[in-house]
Amino acid sequence: MKSQNIVSLIRKKRDRGTLTPDEIRYLIQQYSKDAVPDYQMSAFLMAVFLNGLNDDEAAALTREMLHSGTVLDLSDIPGTKVDKHSTGGVGDKTSLILAPIVAACGVPVPMISGRGLGHSGGTLDKLESIPGFNVNLDLKRYVEVLKKHKLVLIGQTEEIAPADKRMYALRDVTATVESIPLIAGSIMSKKLAEGIDALVLDVKFGNGAFMKTREDALRLAQRLVSIGEEFGKRTIGYLTSMEQPLGNMIGNWLEVYESIECLNGGGPEDLLEVTHLLSGTMIWLGGEAGSVEEGIERSKTAVADGSAMQKLRDIVLEQDGSTEFLDRPDDYPPASHSFDVAAASDGYVTAMDAYAIGMAGVELGAGRKSKEDTIDPAAGIILRKKIGDKVQQGETIVRCFTNKEEQADSVRQMLQDAVTIGSSRPEIPALITDTVTRDGAKPWS
Amino acid sequence: MKSQNIVSLIRKKRDRGTLTPDEIRYLIQQYSKDAVPDYQMSAFLMAVFLNGLNDDEAAALTREMLHSGTVLDLSDIPGTKVDKHSTGGVGDKTSLILAPIVAACGVPVPMISGRGLGHSGGTLDKLESIPGFNVNLDLKRYVEVLKKHKLVLIGQTEEIAPADKRMYALRDVTATVESIPLIAGSIMSKKLAEGIDALVLDVKFGNGAFMKTREDALRLAQRLVSIGEEFGKRTIGYLTSMEQPLGNMIGNWLEVYESIECLNGGGPEDLLEVTHLLSGTMIWLGGEAGSVEEGIERSKTAVADGSAMQKLRDIVLEQDGSTEFLDRPDDYPPASHSFDVAAASDGYVTAMDAYAIGMAGVELGAGRKSKEDTIDPAAGIILRKKIGDKVQQGETIVRCFTNKEEQADSVRQMLQDAVTIGSSRPEIPALITDTVTRDGAKPWS
Repeated sequence: MKSQNIVSLIRKKRDRGTLTPDEIRYLIQQYSKDAVPDYQMSAFLMAVFLNGLNDDEAAALTREMLHSGTVLDLSDIPGTKVDKHSTGGVGDKTSLILAPIVAACGVPVPMISGRGLGHSGGTLDKLESIPGFNVNLDLKRYVEVLKKHKLVLIGQTEEIAPADKRMYALRDVTATVESIPLIAGSIMSKKLAEGIDALVLDVKFGNGAFMKTREDALRLAQRLVSIGEEFGKRTIGYLTSMEQPLGNMIGNWLEVYESIECLNGGGPEDLLEVTHLLSGTMIWLGGEAGSVEEGIERSKTAVADGSAMQKLRDIVLEQDGSTEFLDRPDDYPPASHSFDVAAASDGYVTAMDAYAIGMAGVELGAGRKSKEDTIDPAAGIILRKKIGDKVQQGETIVRCFTNKEEQADSVRQMLQDAVTIGSSRPEIPALITDTVTRDGAKPWS
Repeated sequence: MKSQNIVSLIRKKRDRGTLTPDEIRYLIQQYSKDAVPDYQMSAFLMAVFLNGLNDDEAAALTREMLHSGTVLDLSDIPGTKVDKHSTGGVGDKTSLILAPIVAACGVPVPMISGRGLGHSGGTLDKLESIPGFNVNLDLKRYVEVLKKHKLVLIGQTEEIAPADKRMYALRDVTATVESIPLIAGSIMSKKLAEGIDALVLDVKFGNGAFMKTREDALRLAQRLVSIGEEFGKRTIGYLTSMEQPLGNMIGNWLEVYESIECLNGGGPEDLLEVTHLLSGTMIWLGGEAGSVEEGIERSKTAVADGSAMQKLRDIVLEQDGSTEFLDRPDDYPPASHSFDVAAASDGYVTAMDAYAIGMAGVELGAGRKSKEDTIDPAAGIILRKKIGDKVQQGETIVRCFTNKEEQADSVRQMLQDAVTIGSSRPEIPALITDTVTRDGAKPWS
């Protein structure tokens, strides 16, 4: 009878029916109890992949994955707790910069992050390039640290959305990853478990993003916002371009390094633009600014007055890290080898394959090819040129750092192929293209 | 790498790509070796269910399921070996009648049959209602008996298409059964393993059939014929109506009883019409008639001259059965209870729900509700009226036999609901609607 019910649920989705919240609850609860085998779940996931889920179904799925584990209650911490989630890209270190900024502005940021996946880096791996930094706090300590500093930076624990964790692993081996409702449910079940009150989403699109097109990114952003709002959380999504890496540095310590530059008042324009938009929106959602524009101003002030950099120091010390290289970043132990990739001709950088650049970083040691691989914190890439920059033949366009000297030739070729040089100045891709809110209105007047 | 390959195969079908024969071979071979887990296969099966397989893919799938086990070589048995397969219905006992007819006409019939499934009966269960009849011959004995009698009647052994067996079990619990290419592959892999040279298919449609519509049945028949011909086997399919049971008797011994009636020169018209068409086609394919029409004449002669009935006696004796009730069918031990269902009003039988009648038979003990259930050979139903027959209020329309007296009330209600009585004489559904051959031509001029 039980097994029969599960088959009828799979059949219903297979036949493009709409599942009720009770049916979705039954499925996920039984799966969590091992009463639904993986082979039934994978057939269901393929049916969902091909036939979709509507907003109500996606919200119900998120709810059940969320409640498969601990949902943190941060209500005794004063303030509106706001987090940010990015769908992942190359060189995207905004979390490292905006988290201390927003906390310094008085908005609590409970941030549970992930590790690098394929070409895309992960906040946890970057944080761990800071000597001693401990991302493995338990949930009790998570609440304590957040209460003390308005900031905490940890990795996903076993208690957070375990059903999502199992389903994600299953999707990975059954070709059911790239489904917008499943991605949305997976992201939101984890974020909602953090105990947030509001959420800002950075949905990336382009050759270095998970979503290749702006249209797909928009659909995902709309799903994410719809689910967040369904759960009573103010949720705002931005679409940002990943047609080239964000900022100039790729690699774990290199991204911390570039983040420190930003927090010290420097840093590249594109990275600053995205970061301050996201942090400004978080500050506004957190009630510490009257508008997003005012939030952006507060964000910039927190950099200018040093309070954001001080917040990063505080949280690094609280989470057992050393601030030595925060204060003297150039003293960080370098990789054993470095080499340059030079422009093959005169012209302009007209395109960059951010995915290939990310994968080149993986080859250098900055990412994992299999789950067992260890990360080399010093490995990575610095882009000397970006789209629109003029280059001369022989001029360095990319500089690489690695402890795997044997990779140099193949990586040089990958990077040469990843950067297109043309004869005329290209249009630079728009960086921030869309704002997604529940009602479609801009979050500010 | 291996796991990656499987994921990319699933992804390809998910994205409506066409799999190569090598890819399908790899998938099925790895699955047979337990190197592909069920959760990957079920995701693949759902992708196939929703996105289909083309003729080449379906042939490749059939080939790999076929070669997952033993493929019999009957080449040292003289003659063209011909079998028949029906997609299953209610009251369909044609195999019991045509197998001895065709063998009596000199065409070897290597028949591997199945058991009842849900509302639909199975040849093996019917044969086992003959005391002592042994359907569990090994493949060596199978060849010996066929050589001796030009006929053998057994059940599927473990050696026949084991990959299909596993995949079928998986489809049953993942809502991926009703897929025309998967059904076609499953049927044909088993039939081709028998060592046949040619095959006649009886694809049923209507409320008592697996395929509810003539269109679906036609698509299935075309797939089956296409696969058979791809394997170099002459394959002809007929579409026959299952808008009411075939013949008048439903239940295991009752169907043997009605088959004996037919072999003794009696029997109902509809059953005789379908049987002789199928047997006539088999005799023609087996080279013992110059046309299907001549095959039908030879088939009728084999009944009239008693040679078909003698063939049934011979094979029953060879396979350890008793011919006592073949010769005196009315002496068969009856069920403990019988009861009638009467017409509720005057009029005509305008429709019959063959599925419900089949399920009523199961309730009486003629089928299994779970795999562990045993069959009651004496249980079943005799239809006194069929579509088009005039009835008077209170007149018996159905007679039931059971050893489960407690089921009488509910079964009576089921049957009352299953037979529709209207005020005007209905059109009688056409029994044989379509002939399907590779090139679309009738198999005779």
